[in-house]
Amino acid sequence: MAADNAIYIGNKPFMNYVTAVVMQFTTQGAEEVTIKARGKFISRGVDIAEISAKRFLIDQVYVKEIKIDSEEFKNKEDRQVRVSTIEITLVKK
Amino acid sequence: MAADNAIYIGNKPFMNYVTAVVMQFTTQGAEEVTIKARGKFISRGVDIAEISAKRFLIDQVYVKEIKIDSEEFKNKEDRQVRVSTIEITLVKK
Repeated sequence: MAADNAIYIGNKPFMNYVTAVVMQFTTQGAEEVTIKARGKFISRGVDIAEISAKRFLIDQVYVKEIKIDSEEFKNKEDRQVRVSTIEITLVKK
Repeated sequence: MAADNAIYIGNKPFMNYVTAVVMQFTTQGAEEVTIKARGKFISRGVDIAEISAKRFLIDQVYVKEIKIDSEEFKNKEDRQVRVSTIEITLVKK
């Protein structure tokens, strides 16, 4: 199993992401899943990690690692923009 | 110096928080500073950590630890509510 079963958080319904995380561990048998989010979706990424780990997969997974970083890119007006990112890795106990 | 120089992120102007973090390390001589945020302010907390560490205190501090957790409390309507939290600890190099 590849080490990066990544779930990217956007503005789909909240439970879509929780279900995706839970299914990676259950039906897909993943050993670890990484939740990735940028900018305003970071809060949502943390919510999804917390609800997945503490409500749906309680005693089955834990937070192994959290990384934050910045990405720089040019927006439509050709301006340099910085956005924060987060990666939360959940691992099977 | 106490280990928990905590800065709580709310809806004051963004640069107030960055300045508070930077001043803890510079004029207050702190060895470490913890940025704490809850709910929708989590994204902001990550932005403040990133900008403090990578723009204002570049090569001077690094992210030592990031913790996420959940808090439960009763809201005004006496309903049990869950909110995610983050703590980002920056440390002097």
